[in-house]
Amino acid sequence: MKILALDSSGLVASVAVVEDETLLAEYTVNYKKTHSQTLLPMLDEVAKMIELDLQSIDAIAVAGGPGSFTGLRIGSATAKGLGLALDKPLISVPTVDAIAYNLYGCEANICPMMDARREQVYTGIYSFSHGTTFITKCPQKPAAVEEIIQELNLLGKEAVFLGDGVPVYQELIQKIIQVPYWFAPANLNRQRASSVAVLAMRYFKEGKTETAAEHKPDYLRLSQAERERAEQLKKVR
Amino acid sequence: MKILALDSSGLVASVAVVEDETLLAEYTVNYKKTHSQTLLPMLDEVAKMIELDLQSIDAIAVAGGPGSFTGLRIGSATAKGLGLALDKPLISVPTVDAIAYNLYGCEANICPMMDARREQVYTGIYSFSHGTTFITKCPQKPAAVEEIIQELNLLGKEAVFLGDGVPVYQELIQKIIQVPYWFAPANLNRQRASSVAVLAMRYFKEGKTETAAEHKPDYLRLSQAERERAEQLKKVR
Repeated sequence: MKILALDSSGLVASVAVVEDETLLAEYTVNYKKTHSQTLLPMLDEVAKMIELDLQSIDAIAVAGGPGSFTGLRIGSATAKGLGLALDKPLISVPTVDAIAYNLYGCEANICPMMDARREQVYTGIYSFSHGTTFITKCPQKPAAVEEIIQELNLLGKEAVFLGDGVPVYQELIQKIIQVPYWFAPANLNRQRASSVAVLAMRYFKEGKTETAAEHKPDYLRLSQAERERAEQLKKVR
Repeated sequence: MKILALDSSGLVASVAVVEDETLLAEYTVNYKKTHSQTLLPMLDEVAKMIELDLQSIDAIAVAGGPGSFTGLRIGSATAKGLGLALDKPLISVPTVDAIAYNLYGCEANICPMMDARREQVYTGIYSFSHGTTFITKCPQKPAAVEEIIQELNLLGKEAVFLGDGVPVYQELIQKIIQVPYWFAPANLNRQRASSVAVLAMRYFKEGKTETAAEHKPDYLRLSQAERERAEQLKKVR
């Protein structure tokens, strides 16, 4: 089975092609360019390098949210366009779960943190048991940094942090964490399309696919414009 | 600190740029092209994408062996050329250690296996304690598959296998392993230049650098041509 995976949920843009147990190619960039400038050229570059026949792909996986609203829309639009043109199913993978998959096999409580501004993060708590069993202790959700740390404290086990929220909230984490903890290193601490692809293979085997037309990103919360509109409407009433 | 890292020790060609705790870019390809066709174009592509000023790099890290003789020579020659031209130090990272770094934080016994043909592998045994402490239980070496499995059996702890030797010797492993075991998934089971870079940062801080002129790959054993010559010489005497 061959999966093309995309992740543009955060600052990172990443493209990967995985066939069964083998990563054929992965290209990941964390740079100030917008994803609309990087994602398709990166896919094009990878496809040329490995002489990829796009028709040979079984499904297109995408980090389906949460994440940056613009980033998610670019990733989803790209995946939908490819899915429609190639007539292939899409697999929408929860972004936070995919980040946790970077630390496959780690028995500590894995806590990805994607910065959602104002001391809020998109986060969750995961762990691996005996290498291969992926345990979701807290499914992905928006939360205050303090709230998720308190949950980790209650679980009372070593914790590991990763994601773009870590450099932003590192001091806050260190102030309130009461269990042993560490931070994932640079080779594993941000989004990777290969992790999206590996998790997508599990979803595919469980029949969790959707058509390009059905797919939409899961923002997990309202956009700033929607929040402000709701508040305005409340005032008017 | 900014590190440019290269790994062409096996079938995979991989280039990464890491700055402190952040991966700026990584490009990894596992395809039938030779590294002389891929490595420099990949570096060029990455440099353009992140508008990399090569002079801003502090050191050039390279997977210094073991591995394929041709692959190692291409990686080393590229690193030496860059080091000489830019007047930057080189950091030679043991290939097998760098592969183990893909599973940073994993407490199982990590056993990378690079296929060295005829039921021989380049291998080693590693583990992480409390996330951050990297323990070398058996330093990298050439060994028979059976020999390293017996060592894992004696250690009596869960083991995880990764590397291009796994698909080749999977049946043999399953036949003689007596401890619980699993195989690393596609997002983590081959060489990655970002893992070379992260390990190189440790080496850099410990002063373990060399000049471009000093650097040479560590093949760990004689090439086939050298072995055959030695045998011929033995016969003549």
